[in-house]
Amino acid sequence: MATIQDRVPASNIKRIAVLTGGGDCPGLNAVIRAVTKDAINHGIEVYGIEDGFLGLVEDRIRPLSIDDVSNILTMGGTIIGSNNRSNPANFPVGKDKDGNTIFKDLTDVCVTHLQIRKIEALIVIGGDGTMSIAKQITDKGFNCIGIPKTIDNDLYGTDITFGFQTAVHIATEALDRVHSTAASHHRVMVVELMGRNAGWITLHAGLASGSDIILIPEIEFDLDKITEYCLWRSQRGKRFTIIAVSEGAKPKGGDQIVDRLVENSPEAIRLGGVAKWLAGEIEERTEIESRYVVLGHVQRGGTPTAGDRVLATQFGHHAMELLKMGLTNRLVVMQGGELGDVEITSAADKQRLVPKDHPLIAAARSVYTSFGD
Amino acid sequence: MATIQDRVPASNIKRIAVLTGGGDCPGLNAVIRAVTKDAINHGIEVYGIEDGFLGLVEDRIRPLSIDDVSNILTMGGTIIGSNNRSNPANFPVGKDKDGNTIFKDLTDVCVTHLQIRKIEALIVIGGDGTMSIAKQITDKGFNCIGIPKTIDNDLYGTDITFGFQTAVHIATEALDRVHSTAASHHRVMVVELMGRNAGWITLHAGLASGSDIILIPEIEFDLDKITEYCLWRSQRGKRFTIIAVSEGAKPKGGDQIVDRLVENSPEAIRLGGVAKWLAGEIEERTEIESRYVVLGHVQRGGTPTAGDRVLATQFGHHAMELLKMGLTNRLVVMQGGELGDVEITSAADKQRLVPKDHPLIAAARSVYTSFGD
Amino acid sequence: MATIQDRVPASNIKRIAVLTGGGDCPGLNAVIRAVTKDAINHGIEVYGIEDGFLGLVEDRIRPLSIDDVSNILTMGGTIIGSNNRSNPANFPVGKDKDGNTIFKDLTDVCVTHLQIRKIEALIVIGGDGTMSIAKQITDKGFNCIGIPKTIDNDLYGTDITFGFQTAVHIATEALDRVHSTAASHHRVMVVELMGRNAGWITLHAGLASGSDIILIPEIEFDLDKITEYCLWRSQRGKRFTIIAVSEGAKPKGGDQIVDRLVENSPEAIRLGGVAKWLAGEIEERTEIESRYVVLGHVQRGGTPTAGDRVLATQFGHHAMELLKMGLTNRLVVMQGGELGDVEITSAADKQRLVPKDHPLIAAARSVYTSFGD
Amino acid sequence: MATIQDRVPASNIKRIAVLTGGGDCPGLNAVIRAVTKDAINHGIEVYGIEDGFLGLVEDRIRPLSIDDVSNILTMGGTIIGSNNRSNPANFPVGKDKDGNTIFKDLTDVCVTHLQIRKIEALIVIGGDGTMSIAKQITDKGFNCIGIPKTIDNDLYGTDITFGFQTAVHIATEALDRVHSTAASHHRVMVVELMGRNAGWITLHAGLASGSDIILIPEIEFDLDKITEYCLWRSQRGKRFTIIAVSEGAKPKGGDQIVDRLVENSPEAIRLGGVAKWLAGEIEERTEIESRYVVLGHVQRGGTPTAGDRVLATQFGHHAMELLKMGLTNRLVVMQGGELGDVEITSAADKQRLVPKDHPLIAAARSVYTSFGD
Repeated sequence: MATIQDRVPASNIKRIAVLTGGGDCPGLNAVIRAVTKDAINHGIEVYGIEDGFLGLVEDRIRPLSIDDVSNILTMGGTIIGSNNRSNPANFPVGKDKDGNTIFKDLTDVCVTHLQIRKIEALIVIGGDGTMSIAKQITDKGFNCIGIPKTIDNDLYGTDITFGFQTAVHIATEALDRVHSTAASHHRVMVVELMGRNAGWITLHAGLASGSDIILIPEIEFDLDKITEYCLWRSQRGKRFTIIAVSEGAKPKGGDQIVDRLVENSPEAIRLGGVAKWLAGEIEERTEIESRYVVLGHVQRGGTPTAGDRVLATQFGHHAMELLKMGLTNRLVVMQGGELGDVEITSAADKQRLVPKDHPLIAAARSVYTSFGD
Repeated sequence: MATIQDRVPASNIKRIAVLTGGGDCPGLNAVIRAVTKDAINHGIEVYGIEDGFLGLVEDRIRPLSIDDVSNILTMGGTIIGSNNRSNPANFPVGKDKDGNTIFKDLTDVCVTHLQIRKIEALIVIGGDGTMSIAKQITDKGFNCIGIPKTIDNDLYGTDITFGFQTAVHIATEALDRVHSTAASHHRVMVVELMGRNAGWITLHAGLASGSDIILIPEIEFDLDKITEYCLWRSQRGKRFTIIAVSEGAKPKGGDQIVDRLVENSPEAIRLGGVAKWLAGEIEERTEIESRYVVLGHVQRGGTPTAGDRVLATQFGHHAMELLKMGLTNRLVVMQGGELGDVEITSAADKQRLVPKDHPLIAAARSVYTSFGD
Repeated sequence: MATIQDRVPASNIKRIAVLTGGGDCPGLNAVIRAVTKDAINHGIEVYGIEDGFLGLVEDRIRPLSIDDVSNILTMGGTIIGSNNRSNPANFPVGKDKDGNTIFKDLTDVCVTHLQIRKIEALIVIGGDGTMSIAKQITDKGFNCIGIPKTIDNDLYGTDITFGFQTAVHIATEALDRVHSTAASHHRVMVVELMGRNAGWITLHAGLASGSDIILIPEIEFDLDKITEYCLWRSQRGKRFTIIAVSEGAKPKGGDQIVDRLVENSPEAIRLGGVAKWLAGEIEERTEIESRYVVLGHVQRGGTPTAGDRVLATQFGHHAMELLKMGLTNRLVVMQGGELGDVEITSAADKQRLVPKDHPLIAAARSVYTSFGD
Repeated sequence: MATIQDRVPASNIKRIAVLTGGGDCPGLNAVIRAVTKDAINHGIEVYGIEDGFLGLVEDRIRPLSIDDVSNILTMGGTIIGSNNRSNPANFPVGKDKDGNTIFKDLTDVCVTHLQIRKIEALIVIGGDGTMSIAKQITDKGFNCIGIPKTIDNDLYGTDITFGFQTAVHIATEALDRVHSTAASHHRVMVVELMGRNAGWITLHAGLASGSDIILIPEIEFDLDKITEYCLWRSQRGKRFTIIAVSEGAKPKGGDQIVDRLVENSPEAIRLGGVAKWLAGEIEERTEIESRYVVLGHVQRGGTPTAGDRVLATQFGHHAMELLKMGLTNRLVVMQGGELGDVEITSAADKQRLVPKDHPLIAAARSVYTSFGD
């Protein structure tokens, strides 16, 4: 990671654009606001590209003023829209006579749309997919700075991404609420949380809520251990168990069970697959009433927490600092509590997973949390 | 409805018990606290029965002190536990030689457990099922006072029940959060809420969140109208639609579609059936990306809102007032903003549904909300 | 109170205006949104008057579209601005040669500004002061419909006003938070809440938070009773006491003590006067560490609760119904859970105070709450 | 900072005690829970000392079980009580014949009370004052491990302390709420936040809420700059200004003005002094209506945020790790995202203030935030 201190200002940039790609994430508007205000504050004009790279291909680009970014700091979503299905390098442009979709590389078109407006640099806010596309734009000689974005906190190269704290906050609130139902009814409650292949949200929210069992993709679980634990709690007079389970959690010995589920019903696993299956299995094996909740999209929307607003503002400001230094092709990151930057595709094809010896796992185990292993 | 003003104090009661039956509901502890403090304040001893009528059958009854109810006003759940599967009048006591479960009427046993401890009256907090059982206890000559409880707000005879405002609050927060995702991604978001056959939670939360479409069991929906509405919004530049759907909502012309769903997969409808089906149908027909969230048990747990704490405290206090008047067999209710009481089984076999000409429906329609009809 | 059912539609109104007067109140934007959407839905054009009656005098009037009221349902404040210091009937227009302000009656000017734009009716959202001004406009033959607004819930003629539930919600959260500090440090914590001469916010929030002592203007307190109560709790092992005090609460036998306070320091009483004085007196007399918090303006801003959004939407819709009926000079009210209307100045010079025999006071007393009397 | 990796386990400890000192702080119970569960999980008995060092002097020490720490993770305050006025090394034991208080060093008594119960180590949770006392206990040869605690985040040697994120969260919510009032009424709103001599809470909450002006003790403000800024905003059409001010903020050129305030009224500065003075001065000089709010104790109570619960749990676990290593006289810290430990009095007599070139200040300035300098 390089830091600002290493460099000298070198740029005389006059006009930039900003784009948000990928899924919704609390804090996007805070970044857009920071970039826009910082730029205008320094005499730089800002354009917003609508709906991610789709808007860049379709030439939907509009100026952003201070008024456009007033009052958006607390708003979820992104005022310029996003899109997670369009890749300019492989864009569907019609069908051939056999009805097959024809794809074309429209990266050049994207660059042209920017250059026509005399836009000199593009700030791209997104996940690893978005950064890969940004790299292709950069390869055409156009200046891109990336800002990492994912509620899952699994982006390689940065310790934390904005949106994550908000997701953990919402998940923890839900687990807190479910706790009282479980305790009153002597139930097992299974709550499925987001995170794709990474257990960060589940680990943090599980620990924060005092969940009894935390199941994350990085630690394969053993169903017998889980049911044993539920029964052990029951015998100790704690007649309920809260299980925080990551959507990507899987049983030991590969994912046969989940595979089987998916075979029978291809959509089963997409949302709530694991939670539903777990609740069913536990109820059958322990005879303790079991229910499940799939928190879903509630985790990624709405007002960001104070922490995420601060982090997003810092990321936006730092991206502007890099631009003012004349840098290109860099990704803003936070490491060891310090802001810095790495090469923009550093995060591509890598994922920051929860290490099995992570201090939070040790802390959780020591307060009797089971990881089902 | 009769009110306190109609009566004169007539009781010299010395010992009572309290019991919570049925599903979890924010405010239960506030009622238990109010009953216990009020009673002790008036020289009356209080016992808590564990896990609803199950604990009454099994003689699990313990004294409640001021300390037991300290700090529980803000807590979700019920400190004495609940149970929604045990009916003393039809209680499983073993199996015959063919392995069939033998059921017995243990109502007498329940009354004996109370009388042995010199308990003179029982305050029963629950829904219509719980009140029916209370009636059987009353029929044995034992004094019962009922306090209505349901987050669904569908109890006949009372305008409002505690827990409902909390459920609406949580549902509205979730709809608010989902709003930003929908707007950023130009999606249809379907959020399924609780309420069994009554649309109260969905109607209130849908209106409070500005949901575009509200689907409740009382108004059968037409899928074509829904998709038309989504497309109409899209054409007007509002490229997203929020749908608040009650778990019991059904399409016009009977519930064939849902029946079909259930036939294929008996569990489909239990949780998230309608939401999943709706999101699928809408995406297929409109080609607008559609997602769904099933809020589930999160709606019924956790800290009650200020309004529910006040209401629950009033209900508990009023039940005590009735007891002090020497009344029995009464259910506490709130009508037209005033507390009163009706015969304890008044609510049985009846349900308070949303009338199609309810003022909230008119208000919602006038701000462009569609009910899919 | 008259209800809609009593009337027949009689109006063919084409253009209306809306104005917000007086202090900030959560739900104002929800009313503006409901009025605007309902009107446009029925082919009626809507204008917004900026900054209350000040903007009417200064002719700052602009059209409101559906887009203007999009996304404002959850926003605190009022998008058209408010003002609580301008009365058109007594408006400062300059100074005479001696430097004295000259006041003029500009009510006619106001009506002219409306008529020039062919605005046929004015929806006025405000408290009793605002309604008195509206009456003067009505007296000039211009159609006004009033919507009651106050967080204090003290408007005569309606059981509830929007904003109140939000104020209670915020006050309860603050009391909940302060509870833990008090308990950990064995302190007396005094929290001062809004409400002017009415104790509604304090009564509801005090009860909802389980405050030990509730002091409202309607029940004069006796300092000796308060200190006795704190000491009694201390002896019982509850070494902390939470006091919710209304800004207008006063000691028995007139308000000499507060008067004395004000004499010494005229601003003392304006904000936090009572709380500060109470905490000081209690600490001195009981030797229990005492602290105070004055919640202030936090109570009247920000996102309205779900309940207030629903109520505000209903009020806005109902005002439109009255207009469509051809009515004028009416104030929307809610009585016994039903919407209706009364003469627009019904509320003037009267205030809805907490009756000393209010059921909530009885309920609070029975759970050991002291009112300091 | 040393880390766990540097050491080998060396202890065979069997019984410990835990104590909380100083002001209330969200997360204290989470630490107590983590320590207790971790200890019992490893066969170590735990005692709780009531009301900080006062309880140690008075020999109020009781065993803590798993049940004692159940359900406390989400609770504010400390279940074992705290006290911020007792120093065993200088403890009042009576009065001499002239009525002067006699102080004695009771450190030996404290150690004796621990040794009698065969307690081998003491975990002390508190600020720098508490750690200085812990050092004196250590000097008597008794093993102490410190856990840093302050909502102000100003403890030297650690990047973050639990409670801080919760304080920022609450302060940001209040600033968000006040924002709508300010905007609707074209007012200046001054919100005073905690932090003693450190501006961390104000800086974070101010940035998170998009406050227009942030005043912290580390940057002396110029009143002219502040009023200029308010007027400049007004001229730009932003007719309101939000000021987040730290309780310790002071005007340029020493603190004469505040001194003068204090001279006239010694208590003025204690709570709300700066906010009240600022609002008064600004209104007088700019003629813009100005109001103030002093958030006070609300900031330090109630449920901790998810982040603080995680951090507090980690700190508790880490203290146990140090004990298990046989270490003594160490303070748990977090530096650069990593847990470690420093000598227990490292933090004494030093304070971590906001450096004037802190990245958050640069970020805030670039989005037009004024620091009044």
